[in-house]
Amino acid sequence: RINGVRLWDSLMEMAKIGPGIAGGNNRQTLTDEDSEGRHLFKRWCDEAGLTMGVDQMGSMFMTRPGTDPDALPVYVGSHLDTQPTGGKYDGVLGVLAALEIVRSMNDLGIKTKHPIVVTNWANEEGARFAPAMMASGVFAGVHSQEYAYGRTDQEGLSYGDELVRIGWRGDEEVGARKMHAYLEYHIEQGPILEAENKKIGVVTHGQGLWWLEFTLTGKEAHTGSTPMAMRVNAGLAMARILEMVQAVAMDHQPGAVGGVGQMKFSPNSRNVLPGTVVFTVDIRSPDLDKLTNMREQIETQAAQIADALGVGCSVEAVGHFDPVEFDSTLVSRVRSAAEKLGYSHMDIISGAGHDACWANKVAPSTMVMCPCVGGLSHNEAEDISQEWATAGADVLFHAVVETAEI
Amino acid sequence: RINGVRLWDSLMEMAKIGPGIAGGNNRQTLTDEDSEGRHLFKRWCDEAGLTMGVDQMGSMFMTRPGTDPDALPVYVGSHLDTQPTGGKYDGVLGVLAALEIVRSMNDLGIKTKHPIVVTNWANEEGARFAPAMMASGVFAGVHSQEYAYGRTDQEGLSYGDELVRIGWRGDEEVGARKMHAYLEYHIEQGPILEAENKKIGVVTHGQGLWWLEFTLTGKEAHTGSTPMAMRVNAGLAMARILEMVQAVAMDHQPGAVGGVGQMKFSPNSRNVLPGTVVFTVDIRSPDLDKLTNMREQIETQAAQIADALGVGCSVEAVGHFDPVEFDSTLVSRVRSAAEKLGYSHMDIISGAGHDACWANKVAPSTMVMCPCVGGLSHNEAEDISQEWATAGADVLFHAVVETAEI
Ligand SMILES: NC(=O)NCCC(=O)O
Ligand SMILES: NC(=O)NCCC(=O)O
Repeated sequence: RINGVRLWDSLMEMAKIGPGIAGGNNRQTLTDEDSEGRHLFKRWCDEAGLTMGVDQMGSMFMTRPGTDPDALPVYVGSHLDTQPTGGKYDGVLGVLAALEIVRSMNDLGIKTKHPIVVTNWANEEGARFAPAMMASGVFAGVHSQEYAYGRTDQEGLSYGDELVRIGWRGDEEVGARKMHAYLEYHIEQGPILEAENKKIGVVTHGQGLWWLEFTLTGKEAHTGSTPMAMRVNAGLAMARILEMVQAVAMDHQPGAVGGVGQMKFSPNSRNVLPGTVVFTVDIRSPDLDKLTNMREQIETQAAQIADALGVGCSVEAVGHFDPVEFDSTLVSRVRSAAEKLGYSHMDIISGAGHDACWANKVAPSTMVMCPCVGGLSHNEAEDISQEWATAGADVLFHAVVETAEI
Repeated sequence: RINGVRLWDSLMEMAKIGPGIAGGNNRQTLTDEDSEGRHLFKRWCDEAGLTMGVDQMGSMFMTRPGTDPDALPVYVGSHLDTQPTGGKYDGVLGVLAALEIVRSMNDLGIKTKHPIVVTNWANEEGARFAPAMMASGVFAGVHSQEYAYGRTDQEGLSYGDELVRIGWRGDEEVGARKMHAYLEYHIEQGPILEAENKKIGVVTHGQGLWWLEFTLTGKEAHTGSTPMAMRVNAGLAMARILEMVQAVAMDHQPGAVGGVGQMKFSPNSRNVLPGTVVFTVDIRSPDLDKLTNMREQIETQAAQIADALGVGCSVEAVGHFDPVEFDSTLVSRVRSAAEKLGYSHMDIISGAGHDACWANKVAPSTMVMCPCVGGLSHNEAEDISQEWATAGADVLFHAVVETAEI
């Protein structure tokens, strides 16, 4: 078993970097806080005897050597970046549990045939730079590095420039590393495990996603002196599209979600009808047909809604992944580990996207999940218990050691 | 007649300060650009022999003495501040036409019994600091100075602090000045005069307004892993409220408008359902009963909409004025001036709020309007012709001279 107290202490220590305003964290990708978190993580890795590699996307790979010089490494990790008002565990738990595993292996004198690489993927959240899971996406060949470098935040700063600015652009060619397997431990971020009273989620699949960024073009005009009949109201078109997205998601129940998190009115003045409204629709399903169907319905109906109001409507897909089926051997290994350790468990589909979804394209991959209170995540109030954190890390430990072979 | 070329040149000169991105202006209240515009205006006033007074709200009063030491001044003006993406004429025309009137009186050697005070009211737009017409509102005793000083922009900077920062907090007690009359010249900002092919709008009334700032409180949560049934979706409540505002405004036709110009999602991240959505509903009517009725219906129905989704809903009125009826003697004087000068004219109700609406509470007031192309305002593409600008200034000239008595 791993050292649950040490894991918890490390989580609390990391949470001091980029504190939020309500108990959580704001350690967004490529900010100074992100850099500070990386330095703390590196120090801990140095102390555990790991050697660092950093790729040109800024992902960190911390290696514990194996006994067979020809064996490919087993990668274990997640991400240290957070949402603007994120929790202390989303991503961080997976990285620090991977570190805890090698710390425990050191304590117990366990050597493995395959090297173990504790991994911190860059820009998993996609909050500052869309899409999410960007560095693992480039690693898996889904995006080009040029595309990723050119992505900009709301201030117009680019990923490429900000990566250099914080000093974490590495030399390694992205995706040059070959993996024996990839395992990731993460909080569920949903309500199912807690409701079912299970300590461990054995993740068999991941939902697919589309992020559709709509740009609605109305006519900027005075809210007082512009008669109703003369308005070209992009705000009204937006309202109708939001209601339609809700309806489309409800029509695809069960196993589908749809909503809007990001919204921008321009010029955003109380007495000016917006000239432009930009917002991103987030739709997901574990069923590819449903996902495709939802996207088609939303794009078609949005165009009709905008058209009826004389509003211009363009759509750009700024994030996408297909539903994922994880490697059955690894999935069984996670299930057996939970069984052997005596932890209650159930099979589960990941509602969120994870770096494991992209890693799965280049190597056998899977995930372990633990519950979170009230299913709450992407919220500073996100919470888990030390007991839950420990149980998942124990399961990960056993699955990793078995995969890396003693 | 006034000097239309000189007026136009001054308009073009002022438009160089705080240029916009599409031919208009961004000279928002209490910015460095606002200060620069004030300095240029002051220089012109100095050259015309006017003496400056500035009150504690930052409004500028530039006096041309009268011949009777006991006669109260006739105030003539508007505002130099603009929307973030505003036009070159909204407000500015009224201030510079008032200046042109005294320039023409100087040229023609006209002396009046009543002094004439060319006025630049601070923060008319209310874009950076709500409400609109704030300084004239304090002048008329509608708001306290403490309230106004405490109003903050989206960065949290206060009116009081920013006024001191730009160096335009004057010594005069606000509202201490007594007015014989107040006249304001403004572009229509609506489509009626152009459609009716009239050069002059004789403004008999102004619409009333409510700005209702809604704060919807949902549950910040992951867009992927939060099932539809578990969402407390403030964004969806917002969409339904926008649609309802539209319906309420349409139910009150003719003579009513309703819309939303300002919107803020928090934390505004693509994969986070918003914890908070804040937006401002702008409703107007020249009919007090309609206006009151719309407000009641909107507040009641918004509470029901939010409640049905489990979303918290609070409303703050951040701007209000009742419909206004301007002084009948002054209105007739404007009409006769247009008649005498041979300009086509019609009676009109102002769709926008103006400082004249507040001034009317403390002195007989009225307005003159000229058309604007396509009824467009609060848009950098706002446009008028030199001929229109001149005609309205001529009418203002005659009405002011008659009111100030030769
Ligand atoms: N785990 C997680 O929240 N990842 C961000 C990508 C997503 O929105 O699913
Ligand atoms: N004239 C003008 O646009 N004033 C701002 C106040 C309003 O929104 O009516």
